[in-house]
Amino acid sequence: MKINIPETDKKRIVIVGGGFAGLKLALKVARNKEYQVVLLDKNNYHQFQPLFYQVAMAGLEPSSIVFPLRKAFRKNQDVYIRVTEVKAVDTANKQLETSLGICNYDYLVLAIGADTNFFGNQKMAELAIPMKSVSEALFLRNRILSDFEKALSTTDYDERQGLMDIVVVGGGPTGVEVSGALAEMKRYVFPKDYPELNTDEIDIYLVQGAGQLLVGMSEQSSKKSLEFLTQLGVKVRLNTLVTDFDGEYVRMNDGETIRARKLIWAAGITGNKLKGMPDASLTHGNRIKVNRFNQVEGIEDVYAIGDIAYMEEDNYPKGHPQVAQVAMQQAQALAKNFQLRHQGKELIPFSYHDLGSMATIGRNRAVVDLPRFKFQGAFAWLVWMFVHLFQILGVKNKVFVFLNWVWNYLTYDQSLRLIIRPRVPRNGDVEVES
Amino acid sequence: MKINIPETDKKRIVIVGGGFAGLKLALKVARNKEYQVVLLDKNNYHQFQPLFYQVAMAGLEPSSIVFPLRKAFRKNQDVYIRVTEVKAVDTANKQLETSLGICNYDYLVLAIGADTNFFGNQKMAELAIPMKSVSEALFLRNRILSDFEKALSTTDYDERQGLMDIVVVGGGPTGVEVSGALAEMKRYVFPKDYPELNTDEIDIYLVQGAGQLLVGMSEQSSKKSLEFLTQLGVKVRLNTLVTDFDGEYVRMNDGETIRARKLIWAAGITGNKLKGMPDASLTHGNRIKVNRFNQVEGIEDVYAIGDIAYMEEDNYPKGHPQVAQVAMQQAQALAKNFQLRHQGKELIPFSYHDLGSMATIGRNRAVVDLPRFKFQGAFAWLVWMFVHLFQILGVKNKVFVFLNWVWNYLTYDQSLRLIIRPRVPRNGDVEVES
Repeated sequence: MKINIPETDKKRIVIVGGGFAGLKLALKVARNKEYQVVLLDKNNYHQFQPLFYQVAMAGLEPSSIVFPLRKAFRKNQDVYIRVTEVKAVDTANKQLETSLGICNYDYLVLAIGADTNFFGNQKMAELAIPMKSVSEALFLRNRILSDFEKALSTTDYDERQGLMDIVVVGGGPTGVEVSGALAEMKRYVFPKDYPELNTDEIDIYLVQGAGQLLVGMSEQSSKKSLEFLTQLGVKVRLNTLVTDFDGEYVRMNDGETIRARKLIWAAGITGNKLKGMPDASLTHGNRIKVNRFNQVEGIEDVYAIGDIAYMEEDNYPKGHPQVAQVAMQQAQALAKNFQLRHQGKELIPFSYHDLGSMATIGRNRAVVDLPRFKFQGAFAWLVWMFVHLFQILGVKNKVFVFLNWVWNYLTYDQSLRLIIRPRVPRNGDVEVES
Repeated sequence: MKINIPETDKKRIVIVGGGFAGLKLALKVARNKEYQVVLLDKNNYHQFQPLFYQVAMAGLEPSSIVFPLRKAFRKNQDVYIRVTEVKAVDTANKQLETSLGICNYDYLVLAIGADTNFFGNQKMAELAIPMKSVSEALFLRNRILSDFEKALSTTDYDERQGLMDIVVVGGGPTGVEVSGALAEMKRYVFPKDYPELNTDEIDIYLVQGAGQLLVGMSEQSSKKSLEFLTQLGVKVRLNTLVTDFDGEYVRMNDGETIRARKLIWAAGITGNKLKGMPDASLTHGNRIKVNRFNQVEGIEDVYAIGDIAYMEEDNYPKGHPQVAQVAMQQAQALAKNFQLRHQGKELIPFSYHDLGSMATIGRNRAVVDLPRFKFQGAFAWLVWMFVHLFQILGVKNKVFVFLNWVWNYLTYDQSLRLIIRPRVPRNGDVEVES
């Protein structure tokens, strides 16, 4: 079966993935109307990953940080969005196998991103809680809240510890942001919601393999983030690895064992795989090797952008960091190159302009590294908020996220503490999708 | 095992259900601090049922119309909230069996409400879509959107009809509101989201067994609601019953068959059952018979309020309508009576003061019946909005619902068109709760 998309005179660009890279590319290429654009994603929305942790912490609704793809392309009639799973690629015949049928392409752009890396630990993959999608963030929210409800009915001290304590693994931005946010919930929210519990009993651990937090940011930021987290009461374990987790106990390589039913895994990512892509095109972290034009070498008319792409540049001999900035800049550059190609002009090689990086730890506590100067604290926190607000897609989302933040700031409250479960149909089965 | 709630000198009132009736009663009784209050609900939130249909229509987020129970009782330290399933009552020993253990009571108040009534039709119960919880409303939202995605890939005209057409059963407020909202999505939203589809092909049917809509409201309102729906293009079938639905075809008693994969069932409700309540205490619609003090006759210290309660009054010889107004007034009256009982004073019998009823059909289209006068149209619509806004729990919810409404009104858009599915864990199982 063939996917139901009209064939036109225009060359067809098929983009797989509606993340920062794929969405940006589709929007840019669509504007010039030189190609037929097909955008494939398994969801009907674009997700704003940097704020997943706020969904997990009951501070924002999923709808505020995701955006319907169809809404983004309302003005572009020549963009075909299909919500489907891409199963494999056949580069010889230039076609994709999807759950909606075969989709042929003239140019294929893989923007399939990366997923949580459990480094082959199957037990961890089953029991730890990752946070790489809005569904996983919601799951974490439900877990935290329902474990607190269980803690209320638990008279055994150790068992209650297991329900209330949380271990976060990975000292990158996600790990730092989650553990900071949890520490603030412990301080401001839980005591009011659970007067029956002694919330001093709650311990938040952040376990980091390296000797510092926020590797990749400045030393100043690393140090300050550690200081901020310590102020908030997070127990940071540097130079420490989690060696085992059985759903009840977390074991570390220094011999420490913590009773905690929730282990949040933010320790690394690995490129998503697509069947049919030759192993030779992959490099470490499962990333796809591309040249300076984001072309996958040796495979005609196949491109990769964003987290999945691995490109070496003079300043980045080991590839770019897997962040939104790179994804969006590559999308922009590739869109330009598609235009140049259409006009028969010479292509321009990509080069990355680092605009800086930042992370937030809590109220008035953030760290910002700009190319020319670095700062931490309340002003950094304001900068963090406005930069993120600016990047969220859609005016309404910006307004609602902003209002939520103001509200939460003034009331010291995240009010979305709801355990909303999928409906259970009348026949007793569990419904995942229809 | 006993539920983990401290025993005190105070008499314990156990309230089952955190709907309009149960929540109001708990708040009122807690204020006087004369009793220990235990509130049991299977969810950790109160749901604002009148706006479920707006969640289903992607106009509001669940979080805007539900409210965490713990947040409602932050100022009352003597209220014990437990998220649990109440399995049975043992009225002889004055205790409840819950999933958290045995819970004894001095006074038991059943505010367990009503659920969708499929009138014993098992097939309908499995295949039709009810809308009696926020989870079911979200499920409907996902179904509508994913069926439209499927319609895009369907070249067969009849099959596409089945995916796009929707049949609503029941001409009460819910049925009228849902079909009106669907008609507006057809007009304003779908053409922009799905330029590839001919949205004129979408048909919305409203099937009503009686000869008029909104039975129980004034004749003016019935007529006007029919007129409004017809203006919006809804195909209303009066005096018609749905006799069969197999998930693909809807069959009616007048011989008509409609191909539609979605049948929204809003045709009636039936009281929720609690094991251990004697059959003799039940009357038609599975409601629990109570006297004018909301006491279940013949069972000591057991009360029922809200949709589950059946009380005969001079003006209501067949019981009160099952609406939020009655539930809240009964809660208020019972709270007062608990106070009088504590003071050793005489109890006051309940009597219902009808404040009127209303329903909304679409933009600038609503019907309002007040005791003294009735009106329809744009002003009625404004009244409808402000009355509902006023009733939603929490200042933040009020603000956010209001902003959403203003936004949707100005942009002719409901922007929450997201198919968010529960996460699928790494071991491939489906996760319903943890």
